[in-house]
Amino acid sequence: MRKARNALYAQSGGVTAVINASACGVIETARKFKSKIGKVYAGRNGIIGVLTEDLIDTTKESATAIRALRYTPAGAFGSARYKLKGLEESKAQYERLIEVFKAHDIGYFFYNGGGDSADTCLKVSQLSGTMGYPIVAVHVPKTVDNDLPITDNCPGFGSVAKYTAVSIREAGLDVASMSKTSTKVFVLEAMGRHAGWIAAAAGLACEKPGDAPHIILFPEIPFDEDKFLAKVDATVRQYGYCAIVASEGVKNTDGKFLAEAGTRDAFGHAQLGGVAPVIAQLVKSKLGYKYHWAVPDYLQRAARHLASKVDVEQAYALGRTAVELAVKGEGAVMPTIVRTSSKPYRWKIGVAKLKDVANVEKKMPRDFITDDGFGITPKCRTYLAPLIQGEDYPPYKNGLPQYAQLKNAAVKKKLSTEFKV
Amino acid sequence: MRKARNALYAQSGGVTAVINASACGVIETARKFKSKIGKVYAGRNGIIGVLTEDLIDTTKESATAIRALRYTPAGAFGSARYKLKGLEESKAQYERLIEVFKAHDIGYFFYNGGGDSADTCLKVSQLSGTMGYPIVAVHVPKTVDNDLPITDNCPGFGSVAKYTAVSIREAGLDVASMSKTSTKVFVLEAMGRHAGWIAAAAGLACEKPGDAPHIILFPEIPFDEDKFLAKVDATVRQYGYCAIVASEGVKNTDGKFLAEAGTRDAFGHAQLGGVAPVIAQLVKSKLGYKYHWAVPDYLQRAARHLASKVDVEQAYALGRTAVELAVKGEGAVMPTIVRTSSKPYRWKIGVAKLKDVANVEKKMPRDFITDDGFGITPKCRTYLAPLIQGEDYPPYKNGLPQYAQLKNAAVKKKLSTEFKV
Repeated sequence: MRKARNALYAQSGGVTAVINASACGVIETARKFKSKIGKVYAGRNGIIGVLTEDLIDTTKESATAIRALRYTPAGAFGSARYKLKGLEESKAQYERLIEVFKAHDIGYFFYNGGGDSADTCLKVSQLSGTMGYPIVAVHVPKTVDNDLPITDNCPGFGSVAKYTAVSIREAGLDVASMSKTSTKVFVLEAMGRHAGWIAAAAGLACEKPGDAPHIILFPEIPFDEDKFLAKVDATVRQYGYCAIVASEGVKNTDGKFLAEAGTRDAFGHAQLGGVAPVIAQLVKSKLGYKYHWAVPDYLQRAARHLASKVDVEQAYALGRTAVELAVKGEGAVMPTIVRTSSKPYRWKIGVAKLKDVANVEKKMPRDFITDDGFGITPKCRTYLAPLIQGEDYPPYKNGLPQYAQLKNAAVKKKLSTEFKV
Repeated sequence: MRKARNALYAQSGGVTAVINASACGVIETARKFKSKIGKVYAGRNGIIGVLTEDLIDTTKESATAIRALRYTPAGAFGSARYKLKGLEESKAQYERLIEVFKAHDIGYFFYNGGGDSADTCLKVSQLSGTMGYPIVAVHVPKTVDNDLPITDNCPGFGSVAKYTAVSIREAGLDVASMSKTSTKVFVLEAMGRHAGWIAAAAGLACEKPGDAPHIILFPEIPFDEDKFLAKVDATVRQYGYCAIVASEGVKNTDGKFLAEAGTRDAFGHAQLGGVAPVIAQLVKSKLGYKYHWAVPDYLQRAARHLASKVDVEQAYALGRTAVELAVKGEGAVMPTIVRTSSKPYRWKIGVAKLKDVANVEKKMPRDFITDDGFGITPKCRTYLAPLIQGEDYPPYKNGLPQYAQLKNAAVKKKLSTEFKV
């Protein structure tokens, strides 16, 4: 019988509150298949670590430490924004991958990322044919952007969705209580440069007329200043205050990001990464209302303390399934979430071919947004509501969540060659 | 026997995650003293509601609804930023208060706020002497700023402290995992215009060298650009990234707020309420590091989902004690937190005279900040650590915290006169 081959796991792109739960699923499951999988290595800082032969030996981590990944946000092995292009364009990179794979007897590759990494994962799986190196490559989906096709939703999204909905509910109560004499308009910025999924999720906090948020601004809907200001004014007049959630990717009618169109720094440079202050300032200058704004930025996607239980469970299940598929020799695939029922919510794991996943972006359907462009429809609510269900608190010590602290011991290098990334 | 007189409760100033826990303590306790206290009314939007005779009848709320205040953030009856001045300057206001008190047989006044409202509460208690109206006025302390004297700490602070420490721990892990190819410097802005208490609390997240936050910027320490940039650069070189927490009140060496010195909007106005982007931009322009920044604003003080259990318990206990003092006829006082031990943490309730509280601001001691001005000392840690202890989660439904929804029914007006505020 052929000896068990090693596995390589790498995280890619922006991290999430639950990407480590997928890592936990991969590593815990691989440890159960000792006859097929030898050691699980991880790329330090994702694919960068693979290319530079900077691998982490996860066998040095205790079962307790690996278990702790389930409730630890961000990327425990480091992630990278580093896109491999086509096999021709990035030939040197792919050849280097094979070189590293061979040196460490890697038979399984698990790539945990979004759309770009699904494409890379597909290309790696094709290496077995084009470059004569046998490897089973499975993609584990992850993205707060929720923009991967086929899968009903993406791990990481449910938790940032929950964070955003809870935050606007809480901040909305705050503004409501102060509005008589102080702040009347509050703008919360949500991640989402191209799609309004996260901003849409804030809409779940509105359960009856008058609840925050009163207005959601989507990248999908060109920003109509007059209509927006009229709605803000009407909301303040009716409820005494107005709570707004704005996608960072909101664009003017001429297609420019509002965040770039507004403020300039002292040197005259466009002030990037803050659509909330631009909108708040607009309200102030046109309507005169006192404002506050918030930009939670990384806090939203790292907020493991407020993770969705459904999200954690799905992230883990996808990691586990990736290994189960791999040991059956099923490569060039991505396990997916299949929704079988919305009320009550039921889901199971499916499998998609990577060639159907790579380079396809799932947009938010127009019928998820209300006709006036400022809210979510019941259809959208039905889709989103299950994804934020349940709480899954990390353990606390001294008042703070105790997240995994890995050794991240390096695997001894076997290659004499270096690779410049 | 004299018939029980009514009580009036009002919230004042910026709200917190636990001010309603104090309200809960006041109302639940008052309901136990039926022979002494008739109805508990609340000022709608704080003192504004009292002046305009817009009172809320809390007897219309069920025991369950009042109990829910214990885990509901913000001000359930509305708060106000409205400062009464001296008895001479604001004579019309004080006379109006008496008029409303008389009309509704108010014998007890509970004012839940910070330093300014302690002063107002003191003046109200003096009314019995100067204006011949008998009333017992007790101040219930509340402020995220933690700047009231005598009391060891202020309700509201522990929860925002916990939020800030947890947030920088989570975001720090995020940045660490991305730093190889992406963001290297992250700036989290914390509330605190005059004192660095909240930013200091972020330091609790740093439990060993290299943990976030690496740098804290305090309003107490003039911002030294060169020293700061050198520290950022050294941190990035050593750990690969740098996580910074900046008080909104950080000032230049010439005493100007950094937040005002930096960016200008498209109209040339100073862009207020964002020191984090100013600092991030400075790092980028001088050191070239990719940055992200976050301004949680109201999210931090409204984050009941992450409240400190100690904070909730103290907020409730202070509300309860205020009533116990009042029924004994002890007015012109404020119940306080007395720390009897730090390790293990033990506290009890004390009583301060309002004349010793009003208009005194508690500053952060210089020996709570490290010599280099960028961190907290062990002494500071010993003080802060107990205040974020324990979790006290609200109940969730459909993935969202279920906060109190009061009827806030109006008390029938008895006065024919109107009062313009």
